[in-house]
Amino acid sequence: MILVNGQPEDKISVLDRGLQYGDGLFETIAFRDGKSEFLQAHLSRLYRGCERLKIVTQQLDTQLNAEIKQICDDLTDNAVIKIIITRGQGGRGYRTQSDSTPTRIISTHDMPNYPKENPQGIKVRFCQQTLSENSSLAGIKHLNRLEQVLARSEWNEGDLVEGLMFNNHQQLIEGTMSNVFIVKDGKLLTPELNLSGVAGIMRQQVISCAQYAGIDVIETVVAQQDLQNAEEVFITNSLIDIWPVVEIEGFCNYAYGNITQKLQNVITGSKR
Amino acid sequence: MILVNGQPEDKISVLDRGLQYGDGLFETIAFRDGKSEFLQAHLSRLYRGCERLKIVTQQLDTQLNAEIKQICDDLTDNAVIKIIITRGQGGRGYRTQSDSTPTRIISTHDMPNYPKENPQGIKVRFCQQTLSENSSLAGIKHLNRLEQVLARSEWNEGDLVEGLMFNNHQQLIEGTMSNVFIVKDGKLLTPELNLSGVAGIMRQQVISCAQYAGIDVIETVVAQQDLQNAEEVFITNSLIDIWPVVEIEGFCNYAYGNITQKLQNVITGSKR
Repeated sequence: MILVNGQPEDKISVLDRGLQYGDGLFETIAFRDGKSEFLQAHLSRLYRGCERLKIVTQQLDTQLNAEIKQICDDLTDNAVIKIIITRGQGGRGYRTQSDSTPTRIISTHDMPNYPKENPQGIKVRFCQQTLSENSSLAGIKHLNRLEQVLARSEWNEGDLVEGLMFNNHQQLIEGTMSNVFIVKDGKLLTPELNLSGVAGIMRQQVISCAQYAGIDVIETVVAQQDLQNAEEVFITNSLIDIWPVVEIEGFCNYAYGNITQKLQNVITGSKR
Repeated sequence: MILVNGQPEDKISVLDRGLQYGDGLFETIAFRDGKSEFLQAHLSRLYRGCERLKIVTQQLDTQLNAEIKQICDDLTDNAVIKIIITRGQGGRGYRTQSDSTPTRIISTHDMPNYPKENPQGIKVRFCQQTLSENSSLAGIKHLNRLEQVLARSEWNEGDLVEGLMFNNHQQLIEGTMSNVFIVKDGKLLTPELNLSGVAGIMRQQVISCAQYAGIDVIETVVAQQDLQNAEEVFITNSLIDIWPVVEIEGFCNYAYGNITQKLQNVITGSKR
């Protein structure tokens, strides 16, 4: 099912600024066991993104809540809910109009056939494609995703699940579709995202859960050297929760360690 | 008139990757006096962009030429022709499919009410919004344009026609919708675009015309200091050709000088 501005519809105007300039934002939400997981956190990030891009959010909250409810009522199985908000239509040219009405697109998709916890761990690789730096776009989940598209096109092998991306200073930022954590000296380290990257909802959830569990969490610069010295590595996103990384191709192997397992248990528990 | 994949249509699928990720490219072409100006140069840049983004271009040339002809036959006045090519539809997720069929969107728009040569010159400003750096995306006219959208939202004043954008190292790159040239010691300088910016068709035309007219052209790093010491400044794009800049707000004034005028004449002549 797809709703565009509240109506069943699978098309939008070619003049929509979402298409013309990537002028908008999106959220990807897991719908499991009859529930949209971390829905309020997703919507909060979406509204923060709108604020950063100066997209008018008047009435958006009321409209989205009603439409998400309508979408969920229609679901009979686990699914992915994707929300796209664009600045709406606005002619040719970059200039925005203060009275433009955002476009709301809510679609549902089959849940990828992921194992729920992936206890064997996954194999990842390093991407050649780098992430650029811009504080005005960092952290939010906007529609300008060519860097991720190009990074994901670097490999096809089915056993390689994710690619790790660096900025132009060889600092680790994130995976193409996930955030990255490493365990070092018993502490949890994750790249700071003030200049690049998407501040994932599951990333924030993991940080909160770790702090709750008494594990120190540090958002910092993470270099390749830190990955080499890591005791555990895992990736996170809203669909996979936490996946242990047991191998970075041609670089390092890791154990599926205690802290990763502990955090998986806390996250699973937090959903009950 | 709008054609989507050759059919009169003003909508596209919400699953199109152009909307989902800004996964595509565009061209903006002036249609004046019954002619699409520099059409082959625009199409060549478009295909180079497709190659960079690994978008399959099989048959694209034949299809686009037929559709542009159809669009032009319908035009009765000067107009703007915009072409968008996206990677087409492709589910949820960044991964591209090797067999995906690109989406072609060709639309016409009223020619902005610009004076043809703007002999009084224009007033521009410096933008706060910076341009990020990534060699994989530099030069091509892709659909990830949030930096330009944010830059253009910084001002409303009607007498300020354009904003100049810098990278994060205070180096001048381009205007929000134009390329920038400065004249210094009788030579023409324009920012090199190997890490940021769009390599404009009119920019290339101006470089060729200048070389033809015996003026040295240097693509190089241009700092604010160079703007301060410039004898002439002008901006270019496919709709405005060349506009002399006579003022950078709060920074510098310039004469509408000989080299700018000479290049305007050569460009006008090259279209006959």
